[in-house]
Amino acid sequence: MRIRSMRLEASGALLASLVVALLLIVGGAVTATGAQEDLPSWNDTAAKARIMDFVKATTTAGGEGFVAAEDRIAVFDNDGTLWSEQPLYNQLAFVFDRIKALAPEHPEWKETEPFKSVLAGDLGGVFKGGAKGVVDLAMTTHAGMTTDEFSKIVADWFASARHPQTGKPYDQMTYLPMRELLDYLRANGFKTYIVSGGGVEFMRPMTGKMYGIPPEQVVGSTITTEFAVVDDVPVLRRLPKIDFVDDGPGKPAGINKFIGRRPIFVAGNSDGDYEMLRWVTAKGPSFAMIVHHTDAEREVAYDRKSEIGKLDKALDEAERRNWLVVDMKADWRQVFAFDK
Amino acid sequence: MRIRSMRLEASGALLASLVVALLLIVGGAVTATGAQEDLPSWNDTAAKARIMDFVKATTTAGGEGFVAAEDRIAVFDNDGTLWSEQPLYNQLAFVFDRIKALAPEHPEWKETEPFKSVLAGDLGGVFKGGAKGVVDLAMTTHAGMTTDEFSKIVADWFASARHPQTGKPYDQMTYLPMRELLDYLRANGFKTYIVSGGGVEFMRPMTGKMYGIPPEQVVGSTITTEFAVVDDVPVLRRLPKIDFVDDGPGKPAGINKFIGRRPIFVAGNSDGDYEMLRWVTAKGPSFAMIVHHTDAEREVAYDRKSEIGKLDKALDEAERRNWLVVDMKADWRQVFAFDK
Repeated sequence: MRIRSMRLEASGALLASLVVALLLIVGGAVTATGAQEDLPSWNDTAAKARIMDFVKATTTAGGEGFVAAEDRIAVFDNDGTLWSEQPLYNQLAFVFDRIKALAPEHPEWKETEPFKSVLAGDLGGVFKGGAKGVVDLAMTTHAGMTTDEFSKIVADWFASARHPQTGKPYDQMTYLPMRELLDYLRANGFKTYIVSGGGVEFMRPMTGKMYGIPPEQVVGSTITTEFAVVDDVPVLRRLPKIDFVDDGPGKPAGINKFIGRRPIFVAGNSDGDYEMLRWVTAKGPSFAMIVHHTDAEREVAYDRKSEIGKLDKALDEAERRNWLVVDMKADWRQVFAFDK
Repeated sequence: MRIRSMRLEASGALLASLVVALLLIVGGAVTATGAQEDLPSWNDTAAKARIMDFVKATTTAGGEGFVAAEDRIAVFDNDGTLWSEQPLYNQLAFVFDRIKALAPEHPEWKETEPFKSVLAGDLGGVFKGGAKGVVDLAMTTHAGMTTDEFSKIVADWFASARHPQTGKPYDQMTYLPMRELLDYLRANGFKTYIVSGGGVEFMRPMTGKMYGIPPEQVVGSTITTEFAVVDDVPVLRRLPKIDFVDDGPGKPAGINKFIGRRPIFVAGNSDGDYEMLRWVTAKGPSFAMIVHHTDAEREVAYDRKSEIGKLDKALDEAERRNWLVVDMKADWRQVFAFDK
């Protein structure tokens, strides 16, 4: 069965009334089967209330804060906002694992930095080389193959790698309250996007399963690809060349480039999200939230002056700019789905 | 009224059965009000049949060619495929009009090429300077303002400019059969994208109205933008620097970067679409079509060896690669909506 093509001008009004009827039926059905509470892993604090008030205002037709469904764009940082970024960005764990996997083909790495430090498990040594060393590692592990090959490498890594502290697969290192927030926004007509400094092709194979976000709604850093025909088969080759860095001031630029309109909801957790928070809240009805890592028991208490996920400027300005600061310890009933 | 957030695991099965019920109701309603014919501006030739056969196969659950709705991505070139590109790419008409509008602030342009030729209406003189001259014109007219300012400039131009031959606003220069094809694909669960060599921010203000395609489903060439805070207001400034050229081999790269998965349907009209046609049809169930400009009466007969919209290589290989060649003269009942 398929919906037959129809001219909207002919049947638009009828269709609209049928859609309204469906919504009533669905609303009734949910009540009948026992409506689930919205955001069940959030405590009943002011944070949850502020989020729900905003969603209620944007979805109340005729209200002052109403926003048409097609303009309900919500953007989420990934590392530290949707999943853990401790003790290291997960994409760096991928990089180190790939270097180890590729090492047998590169005996020279035993004597060459930053590879030598990676193989010795010496993180300090890796970072001593500064940004250049990390970029070298990233290009070595992210380029030189086709896009299809890289996608498979990523999926295979997720299937086998385990988080060093929890022992869980990385795709389970997501914050349950944030996944509920994504679901809640989508149920209210929002289109949810990731806008991350991470590599877009590192995220896309997994974001559907992890967050219900399809590949085309993932904005991230990119490397240059090159079209080529090999044995009459067209491929895209990943070149060792950074195309775009979707971090800091790059985030509003990335939103403009990939999405092409201004979101009304934004969530971040670090100063790398500062410009995106500013951009989203500069105009019209909008909502910004910061995930503040305060929970030393259930996760890691960090972010002020932190190496990874530093949150200073955005936190300093949050109150003045009316950005919600979510206190993980106080506002979240549960952090990970695998927690008891 | 809004759909209440619900846990899919709790009510998924019930919801699915309600959706099925709605589809039955909608199907019935369309029949009751008189079902419109699909693709009414297409003649009943093999071209129309091939398109409809493909759509039927991809949407028939359990069939060999079935494709899940989320993978039904369709990409369309814009110039010469969705709207006219004759006598000049419409974006070039925009460039020339902008140069004329800005000329009073630039008295030096009277003596400086390529501006001098533009102001004199001497197209030959403009192109004598080669690609560099055209890029200079494009950067002069597309950069130096904020993204919001540029969006308004574009919308204003569309409101006032008229096509030199038809006298119609440019947003009416779309091909009616192609707009019907977009509607038809969407009614069958396809997500429709533009993938054009044109500037993404030249297209986005208009694609919703012209094609029912939202900004986030427009892939195109981009210039670099820079985040800045002016008087505490965040803006994105458009810099005179090309970021990405979404043409030729850039089209599959653009699809990969912006959409992140391989479409199953592609439409183009020139050799600038060749690599995109190859990329889309390299794997799995897929369909490619070429709009072949054969109609000297209702539009312009061109494309073989043409300056604009040259179609040689793709046409030569079309039969061998099973790409549908749409003969505008034979296959389209009507070209523009304003035609009688």
